[in-house]
Amino acid sequence: MSPQWLENGDGVATPPSLDAQSIRSHRKPIDASQWGPAAPAKSESFQIRQHWHKPKAKRWDHILSKESAGRAGNSLKYAASFLSRPGMISLGGGLPSDEYFPWDELHFKVPQVGQFSDKELRKNGVLIKAGKHDLAEQKSIFDISTSFNYGQGHGSAQLLRWITEHTELVHDPPYTDWSCTMTVGSTCSMDFVLRMLTQPGDYIASEEYTFSTAVEAATPMGVKVAGVKMDDQGLLPESLDALLSNWDPAERDAKKPTILYTVPTGQNPTGATQGEKRRRDVYTVAQKHDLYIIEDEPYYFLQMQPYNSQGTTASPPPATNAEFLKSLIPSYLSIDVDGRVLRMDSFSKVLAPGTRTGWITASQQIVERYTRHSEVGTQGPSGVSQLMLFKLVDEYWGHDGYLDWLVHIRLGYTQRRQVILEACEKWLPREIVSWQPPVAGMFHWLKIDWRKHPLASSKTILEIEDEIFMASIDQGALVIKGSQFYANKEENHDTLYFRSTYASAPPDKINEAIRRFGTAVRSVFKLKE
Amino acid sequence: MSPQWLENGDGVATPPSLDAQSIRSHRKPIDASQWGPAAPAKSESFQIRQHWHKPKAKRWDHILSKESAGRAGNSLKYAASFLSRPGMISLGGGLPSDEYFPWDELHFKVPQVGQFSDKELRKNGVLIKAGKHDLAEQKSIFDISTSFNYGQGHGSAQLLRWITEHTELVHDPPYTDWSCTMTVGSTCSMDFVLRMLTQPGDYIASEEYTFSTAVEAATPMGVKVAGVKMDDQGLLPESLDALLSNWDPAERDAKKPTILYTVPTGQNPTGATQGEKRRRDVYTVAQKHDLYIIEDEPYYFLQMQPYNSQGTTASPPPATNAEFLKSLIPSYLSIDVDGRVLRMDSFSKVLAPGTRTGWITASQQIVERYTRHSEVGTQGPSGVSQLMLFKLVDEYWGHDGYLDWLVHIRLGYTQRRQVILEACEKWLPREIVSWQPPVAGMFHWLKIDWRKHPLASSKTILEIEDEIFMASIDQGALVIKGSQFYANKEENHDTLYFRSTYASAPPDKINEAIRRFGTAVRSVFKLKE
Repeated sequence: MSPQWLENGDGVATPPSLDAQSIRSHRKPIDASQWGPAAPAKSESFQIRQHWHKPKAKRWDHILSKESAGRAGNSLKYAASFLSRPGMISLGGGLPSDEYFPWDELHFKVPQVGQFSDKELRKNGVLIKAGKHDLAEQKSIFDISTSFNYGQGHGSAQLLRWITEHTELVHDPPYTDWSCTMTVGSTCSMDFVLRMLTQPGDYIASEEYTFSTAVEAATPMGVKVAGVKMDDQGLLPESLDALLSNWDPAERDAKKPTILYTVPTGQNPTGATQGEKRRRDVYTVAQKHDLYIIEDEPYYFLQMQPYNSQGTTASPPPATNAEFLKSLIPSYLSIDVDGRVLRMDSFSKVLAPGTRTGWITASQQIVERYTRHSEVGTQGPSGVSQLMLFKLVDEYWGHDGYLDWLVHIRLGYTQRRQVILEACEKWLPREIVSWQPPVAGMFHWLKIDWRKHPLASSKTILEIEDEIFMASIDQGALVIKGSQFYANKEENHDTLYFRSTYASAPPDKINEAIRRFGTAVRSVFKLKE
Repeated sequence: MSPQWLENGDGVATPPSLDAQSIRSHRKPIDASQWGPAAPAKSESFQIRQHWHKPKAKRWDHILSKESAGRAGNSLKYAASFLSRPGMISLGGGLPSDEYFPWDELHFKVPQVGQFSDKELRKNGVLIKAGKHDLAEQKSIFDISTSFNYGQGHGSAQLLRWITEHTELVHDPPYTDWSCTMTVGSTCSMDFVLRMLTQPGDYIASEEYTFSTAVEAATPMGVKVAGVKMDDQGLLPESLDALLSNWDPAERDAKKPTILYTVPTGQNPTGATQGEKRRRDVYTVAQKHDLYIIEDEPYYFLQMQPYNSQGTTASPPPATNAEFLKSLIPSYLSIDVDGRVLRMDSFSKVLAPGTRTGWITASQQIVERYTRHSEVGTQGPSGVSQLMLFKLVDEYWGHDGYLDWLVHIRLGYTQRRQVILEACEKWLPREIVSWQPPVAGMFHWLKIDWRKHPLASSKTILEIEDEIFMASIDQGALVIKGSQFYANKEENHDTLYFRSTYASAPPDKINEAIRRFGTAVRSVFKLKE
């Protein structure tokens, strides 16, 4: 045995690096009684390897809000701790009997691995079945009886195991006490995290153009966002450093921010993706100022193939899943030696938004606080969604098949990006509109040189923006105003952008919409067609 | 046409009262374009009849928290308002294309109406199917493509219509501007409502024994609960009146409560059910003190048949669904002339908790604030859950079949209650343990005459409670301590209870658990077997 093999908790040796094919073979044996309704589970227990050789996460007591720090455990859990005694009969928990669940079987038609297209799915898709009592009948470890009953704030043990393994496979956080807990999606996670880590009157830092829903969640809580300048790779570390180094609590009437909210990959709205060096530089600034990082990564697996402008040869897709994983820009989580990152993942962009299922990864301290919040907040994601996801990504595809699916999406988005970029090159006036080909995500960010507007000296940026927006509407093309994404509307802005997406419309419609937008811009800037 | 027929919004006459059979025939025609992904909808537009002849709800601006009052709409909605223009192509919203949803068909095996038992379901259940493009292919108004994409904070238009109709059918609120919006279950609704209607330092009023999760949600927000005395019918109006009339803000260091949280039917933990007169009396006290009422009603449809003690003839079930509805105790919502009630409904106890889907009904003002919160909070319930529910309760069963199902559950719970009551009569020492047969819900509340404990003069109630609890554990029966449900642990309590449930365990286990509990009580109180 090579010396770098590591023992897991049961004294079994596991390889120094994991791969998607063999990960299932390293699973620890788990007693059937651990899969029942509302079974408590610990993400840590599902990690394939022990991580004792790594440093422990820092403690974050000093940034927990009063609400979060004061949150007690769910009192009904105390009683549940006696349930494991042999022969115990419970008249305790108010879980309804499954005889009153009017569903006996669920069937899901899903694509076979490698036959992922809509057409192949329809033709060759496979029906996978979940029964009501599959667990008791030893047909599966998850079933209707279990998933349709009450669950835990962290979600089902069954899906939490897969999520933990996926996280270890993709990110392998470099500290010992990391953990995962399920969420009802990252929108809700952001709401929770703001309540956990901020108080009214606080500022958090974020990109100067940022996800508007995050700002709209923060504002009613009395939390403001301080914008950090960006370039083509998003957040600028030196701008973040300057913001924090020069922070004047008296002038701002607020303490220096302790939280950075960032979307490092395919950022919404700018489409910007931070390269590896950029991430390491931002992390170093975070260490300098003891910032805690919220890494919101719905688009992480929408990293595309290298861009080839019209006519050049397309790059070949990754030859193996190991190569695919290696091609991905390292996450903040994967470079987080301090445990100062809370990463939000979601199935919304890679499987379906309607699952309303995601997860966070952070240090055990933070994950424990989050889970307590979930218990009296959402109670975790829909059991129906969890069952459907488990049957697909764990039982049917497995980790390897799931990565194959992600490569399929990668290639699909690469094609869609090609369509919008070719349309932009064809239809937009380059003297007014400029852009960078996005590296990841769903958004193409169009910069308008507003200074070339005939009335630039007398009109505001917002007036010119509205003029272009309405002209585009009149042409029959809807794009979103960049100003809707200001991190802070009170800050000065001297740029004008529109956000477009290549994720939704069919290719011919994308082309036509960009043509219409070009006509609108030309008319506003008095250019000839 | 009889003069009491009322016009709906389209000038069509509708009957003065609704029935489950014909409700669908009164639906307003709705254009297919209104059922697409993330289609905005208004509950009001789905009401069968207009309610113009009723009074308008009072305004509640004075009880909205700063957070809720300051919540702006979702800015991305502004752009969406242009989507209805003919020919518009959107590169706006970041909705993924359904070609990347790896599900093509879902099948749900469900019971036929009238063949509801687990055995009949397994044998004669019907597979209902949802396809990916059923909407476009005009096979259904709801499909995978729509439900698996992003939705609105209020949930899908499809299921919201059914919910609105169900609410009109069952409760017919006596004011004009009521509305429904979906939730991810009542646990989350309580969290939202506390954030909407309270500030740190506030008190809310509730039963002296109340749902512990509600208290555990409130506590970290700095919100305390003032307990109101109860009898067999739950909350005592005169105790509520006294609490509010005698409220001393200086002594309490808090303003007089403006919120009453109550579970009127089969209350958790006491199982108490408020009769109609009790509800009207509480409502009158609420009017006197301008209290806003949170009516949490997961157990409303677990109202059982009249109780018959051992050996007497069982009452016949309701002959018709109209008779069934008439047999139900009127909800607060149904007597709410002021619009001062926010009612929480949930599918958890009547279909399955794992759906994580419920709804609230309140005045449009409050529902609008709630929906804004959902948009940046949960984004509404799982689309997978919503699709599964819609296919069952709207398309397959319809309102009438759903009421049949509720009667089936009613009879099931009636049987289960019979089992626990017979066991109690058989096994418990009546000189120590007393109870009332529950009228509704899942809980049987056992009162212990702690004064008869041999060391009653030297032990505290909590010590005696723990002694009984541990003795029961040692016997192999788990019941829950009443003290876990104190509304306020700082208030004085001179009663001792245990909560047991007849909802989960099979009948023979219920009987055995009660036998064991009886043995435990006898041993603690030094009685002979």
